[in-house]
Amino acid sequence: MAGNSFGSLFKLTTFGESHGVAIGGVIDGCPAGVNLDFDAIQHEMNRRKPGQSNIVTQRKEPDTVEFLSGIFEGVTTGMPIGFIIKNTNQKSKDYSHIKDVFRPSHADFTYNQKYGHRDYRGGGRSSARETACRVVAGAVAKQFLNAIEINAYTSSVGNLCLEKSYHELDFSKIESNVVRCPDPEMAAQMIDKIKAIRKEGDTIGGTVSCVIKNVPVGLGEPVFDRLHAQLGKAMLSINAVKGFEYGSGFQGVKMKGSEHNDAFNNDGTTKTNHSGGIQGGISNGMDIYFNVAFKPVATVMQTQDTIDKDGNSVEMQGKGRHDPCVVPRAVPIVEAMAALVLADFMLLNRLSKF
Amino acid sequence: MAGNSFGSLFKLTTFGESHGVAIGGVIDGCPAGVNLDFDAIQHEMNRRKPGQSNIVTQRKEPDTVEFLSGIFEGVTTGMPIGFIIKNTNQKSKDYSHIKDVFRPSHADFTYNQKYGHRDYRGGGRSSARETACRVVAGAVAKQFLNAIEINAYTSSVGNLCLEKSYHELDFSKIESNVVRCPDPEMAAQMIDKIKAIRKEGDTIGGTVSCVIKNVPVGLGEPVFDRLHAQLGKAMLSINAVKGFEYGSGFQGVKMKGSEHNDAFNNDGTTKTNHSGGIQGGISNGMDIYFNVAFKPVATVMQTQDTIDKDGNSVEMQGKGRHDPCVVPRAVPIVEAMAALVLADFMLLNRLSKF
Amino acid sequence: MAGNSFGSLFKLTTFGESHGVAIGGVIDGCPAGVNLDFDAIQHEMNRRKPGQSNIVTQRKEPDTVEFLSGIFEGVTTGMPIGFIIKNTNQKSKDYSHIKDVFRPSHADFTYNQKYGHRDYRGGGRSSARETACRVVAGAVAKQFLNAIEINAYTSSVGNLCLEKSYHELDFSKIESNVVRCPDPEMAAQMIDKIKAIRKEGDTIGGTVSCVIKNVPVGLGEPVFDRLHAQLGKAMLSINAVKGFEYGSGFQGVKMKGSEHNDAFNNDGTTKTNHSGGIQGGISNGMDIYFNVAFKPVATVMQTQDTIDKDGNSVEMQGKGRHDPCVVPRAVPIVEAMAALVLADFMLLNRLSKF
Amino acid sequence: MAGNSFGSLFKLTTFGESHGVAIGGVIDGCPAGVNLDFDAIQHEMNRRKPGQSNIVTQRKEPDTVEFLSGIFEGVTTGMPIGFIIKNTNQKSKDYSHIKDVFRPSHADFTYNQKYGHRDYRGGGRSSARETACRVVAGAVAKQFLNAIEINAYTSSVGNLCLEKSYHELDFSKIESNVVRCPDPEMAAQMIDKIKAIRKEGDTIGGTVSCVIKNVPVGLGEPVFDRLHAQLGKAMLSINAVKGFEYGSGFQGVKMKGSEHNDAFNNDGTTKTNHSGGIQGGISNGMDIYFNVAFKPVATVMQTQDTIDKDGNSVEMQGKGRHDPCVVPRAVPIVEAMAALVLADFMLLNRLSKF
Repeated sequence: MAGNSFGSLFKLTTFGESHGVAIGGVIDGCPAGVNLDFDAIQHEMNRRKPGQSNIVTQRKEPDTVEFLSGIFEGVTTGMPIGFIIKNTNQKSKDYSHIKDVFRPSHADFTYNQKYGHRDYRGGGRSSARETACRVVAGAVAKQFLNAIEINAYTSSVGNLCLEKSYHELDFSKIESNVVRCPDPEMAAQMIDKIKAIRKEGDTIGGTVSCVIKNVPVGLGEPVFDRLHAQLGKAMLSINAVKGFEYGSGFQGVKMKGSEHNDAFNNDGTTKTNHSGGIQGGISNGMDIYFNVAFKPVATVMQTQDTIDKDGNSVEMQGKGRHDPCVVPRAVPIVEAMAALVLADFMLLNRLSKF
Repeated sequence: MAGNSFGSLFKLTTFGESHGVAIGGVIDGCPAGVNLDFDAIQHEMNRRKPGQSNIVTQRKEPDTVEFLSGIFEGVTTGMPIGFIIKNTNQKSKDYSHIKDVFRPSHADFTYNQKYGHRDYRGGGRSSARETACRVVAGAVAKQFLNAIEINAYTSSVGNLCLEKSYHELDFSKIESNVVRCPDPEMAAQMIDKIKAIRKEGDTIGGTVSCVIKNVPVGLGEPVFDRLHAQLGKAMLSINAVKGFEYGSGFQGVKMKGSEHNDAFNNDGTTKTNHSGGIQGGISNGMDIYFNVAFKPVATVMQTQDTIDKDGNSVEMQGKGRHDPCVVPRAVPIVEAMAALVLADFMLLNRLSKF
Repeated sequence: MAGNSFGSLFKLTTFGESHGVAIGGVIDGCPAGVNLDFDAIQHEMNRRKPGQSNIVTQRKEPDTVEFLSGIFEGVTTGMPIGFIIKNTNQKSKDYSHIKDVFRPSHADFTYNQKYGHRDYRGGGRSSARETACRVVAGAVAKQFLNAIEINAYTSSVGNLCLEKSYHELDFSKIESNVVRCPDPEMAAQMIDKIKAIRKEGDTIGGTVSCVIKNVPVGLGEPVFDRLHAQLGKAMLSINAVKGFEYGSGFQGVKMKGSEHNDAFNNDGTTKTNHSGGIQGGISNGMDIYFNVAFKPVATVMQTQDTIDKDGNSVEMQGKGRHDPCVVPRAVPIVEAMAALVLADFMLLNRLSKF
Repeated sequence: MAGNSFGSLFKLTTFGESHGVAIGGVIDGCPAGVNLDFDAIQHEMNRRKPGQSNIVTQRKEPDTVEFLSGIFEGVTTGMPIGFIIKNTNQKSKDYSHIKDVFRPSHADFTYNQKYGHRDYRGGGRSSARETACRVVAGAVAKQFLNAIEINAYTSSVGNLCLEKSYHELDFSKIESNVVRCPDPEMAAQMIDKIKAIRKEGDTIGGTVSCVIKNVPVGLGEPVFDRLHAQLGKAMLSINAVKGFEYGSGFQGVKMKGSEHNDAFNNDGTTKTNHSGGIQGGISNGMDIYFNVAFKPVATVMQTQDTIDKDGNSVEMQGKGRHDPCVVPRAVPIVEAMAALVLADFMLLNRLSKF
């Protein structure tokens, strides 16, 4: 029950630390017969990789995925798909200064207490580097999902918030700017904001929104494995996430039932969609949409007071190459986790009827 | 992988429909040797049961739990704990009018599409009646958890929002009023609000907040089974929940890293607690706190236009006995689910070290 | 991970002790739409129940199953199927003499050491009474399995061994005698043998064989969840089982590859079937057949020397009502477990292809 | 639920085909703090590897394991342990002749039917090559198990059967001969037998026996996850296994209860051990012993009639480099699987008591 697997039928198990030889994973349960587009997979990797623009960490990692099994002549065989991504740019010496130090709001203290020791280099297993494996698996899942469209985008950076409904946005513009906000004006402001924050040696939080279209009716397994519960878990398992809401979300609490209820059209679609595409924990065929809150990155380029493992006060200098704001690179991770959830529920839904 | 089990080591499996003979469950994995206080368990049941006050549904169910196994001479034996709660007040005739009708924003449509048919009486399995089983199991979990204190309370009803930090609240007052808000003045307003809404034949949403104290360091299993990810899933699996945030939550996205970081004291505690008691997915010993958003109940006592299973437009009268606001009765359910999550991670944490 | 669940998709969780109020279980994952024949289910219960003949325990239990959920108008709904079987004939006083005593080759010692205390009445959870729940679930699984035929029978009692191949047997005669051996002459000898053993106050072991016909090609999930591996686990999880072999089994080790290989017919069937219907862990459409070894029941009606929980030597009188040979009543249990395994793999096989 | 994971808490997931780039796996759940002896791990690999003697396949593979994660400064960190073993000697051309042919008693037919296509090179995933990953994980498990001693050995080859009780054997002699039989005289006969069989271009089955000493009381999780049920599943999941028996096994069925019962000594040990160290599904501290039956390898160096994927009759020549008898190389695999089972139950047993 160690927590390195996600999903029940379309299942990803990952391994690897930030500064080890390689990270990697196993996708077990991908059905046989999926014709894989490897360029599409690498494209997703490139959206997540460090060094892709001037508002993300300048660490350079090619993040090339090597598939080791489960694919024959380009087609999945139903066997487990093993893959690795080599760590090419570890610079382990960068991290010797944190060997015995607990960085504030990092996982250093908790890992040390729980496991007795830890691989401190680059945050070890607690580094967001592991999310590269999620993107690999999510990219495979997307190909299994076929017609289902998953679009995530940056919807806020600090207090800059895109107030428009997703219906007013043109998703084809998401990749047109480095912050991945489909509204060009807001995108420009967000980019300026992040650059300013970086100059301060500071970091800032933000929000990623996600819209999923063409979802078949029937995904979700009540009572505990409701579709949105598993989506929520998926998102909350991503580094730095502090909150999740879907459909009407936290705003919905202020509404009356008579306003919130989504009246039916005669074809089973609904006139409004406060339900966010999920009723009773099961997809109803309408768009699924949700928001994910990311806190500011804990690594700041400023001097901080902290403690070492013996409880002594120490002063810590900000070092290393880190993201001033994780949100732009989080966009493909949110999509990947959504794809994994949907792939799992697509398979589960094959079991509903005799 | 049908979704009626929750937890990995301290595991609850539930069954039962709103209007069947009985609902019930099995708790598998509760260690041997827990001396059970049955009055405390029934007390939790009474906090959730219908008919307990004039702001909740007037349906009457004694909700008496009968334990069938796994307990000998009052002490758990390590064997599965089976239990049932008889349904005594089904009034199945109340529901014949919805046999072929899909109620707006209910699970009628999705269950029908997914499973081909459904037990429509009282919502069947999709009814919040199943949460009674969660409360039983949560009450057992609480006794296993010993010194850990879990306090949930109503923090908003509609747009009435308790803005105070939980540090300013006296949790001993939660049960002093029927809405379960520890601030007496706000409680009075909330009660008035709910009564007014009920008079309109309408419903309203709200928020439950929860604070967990005395949590040992080390609970949580990264990278996927982070403590807050599993808490989030637990809460999102409760009927009518639309959102979850912990620690700084959605507000945290607006902060800078330098503000958000929780500086250490020399003993490993932190000066602030924006992390919400969880760092890197693992409890750090500080208070865990989170908010859960509940939408307004879909059953309103008003006439609504909807469709039947053949897609014909029909007019539906509001009938039955329902809650104008679920939040007061959701408080013990939130606590129960939190207890189940913690019990599971307590057991998982026994496995961390050689 | 407490061990009271069996199966991954068609999953049974059981609870209950020999002398508690009731035993019961939950079947989670049975697809919606199975039209249940309740008489057929009770028929299976009657094949297992005590007191059915003069060669089994004379304890009387009606073993009536009560379904509590998951079925609406006689048809499964896809929701968890909860059920209980009341214990009506506990006679708990019979067992006070073993309260502090460890019976030889029973589970008393190991349960006490593992859990610290135990429900000693009638063996508590370790009693074969729990297998009644397996028979309920297996009977439901059989109805899901439709055309697949599962026939188990007694193939040996002590050193009386039915040497005939199953092809020479008429399975319609299995239920024609109380020992459930389809060969009438051998059956008569076995019955005499069991009666003689009972007169001695002793018990005897035996073997159950099982043949499964009309299995579709494709059941089994290598590399670990091979069809025969899961069948083996299923059988070995039944009380008193000491061994499992399928196809050529232990005799097959003496063969050469050139003899053992099953040559193909042009339609993909095989000329011989040493493989026992399973190749590479996956069913090939030929008959599956296997043998299960049951040791003699540990409860003998003779005086035995043993120890109490403090390690003192004590003399123990044989008391209670027990089976001189478990094999006749084990036949429906073997079938039930086989049905559960096949139902699970039928669902799993829905996931193999895109 | 794809079947490439084994274990619940100490969990191995494997991937890889015989002729892919590499095979590998992830061990998730190994507690932090195990000081690994890498030479001991490679030693186990060498016991399984091809080409080690003149009675096994002459294929040459160095089978060097590369650990990628989960270990820091030689000590496990509690993080998932990823590893790969490169395939260095694939000779894929050897297998083009079986591309469209179904070899008798191989997995070709069943894989093709189940998955629609397959990696036919060297048997792909169905090759026993995947057991190398089990040996890696088993070797790690052994180091976690500490004082527990697991000794497997060849107990029969064809009809040459070592009749001696394990008490009469000197386990230190197991590795003194290439067939891994601790009785030197019998070993010599077995070796001659295998050489003769190989000369015929044929193969032969055999039996591996295993004895586990120093097992603590309390391992096993009834009612379904009995210790021997999981051991049985583990063994039956190994390629070519047809049967499993423990303790008195299939011979025990002939005994009377009064003979079979293991009388207690005052310290809780037993005078005899027909129970095979397991009572009620839980270890009782006595030696665990069991037998595993392996069929003859299906690949023979003789001409066989078979069919191609279109059902046409074809003649197939024996080619490739294969084992005339798998038993000598199966010895370390049996030990590895036993170690994985015990490691899992050691962790599970940490959960039994409050």
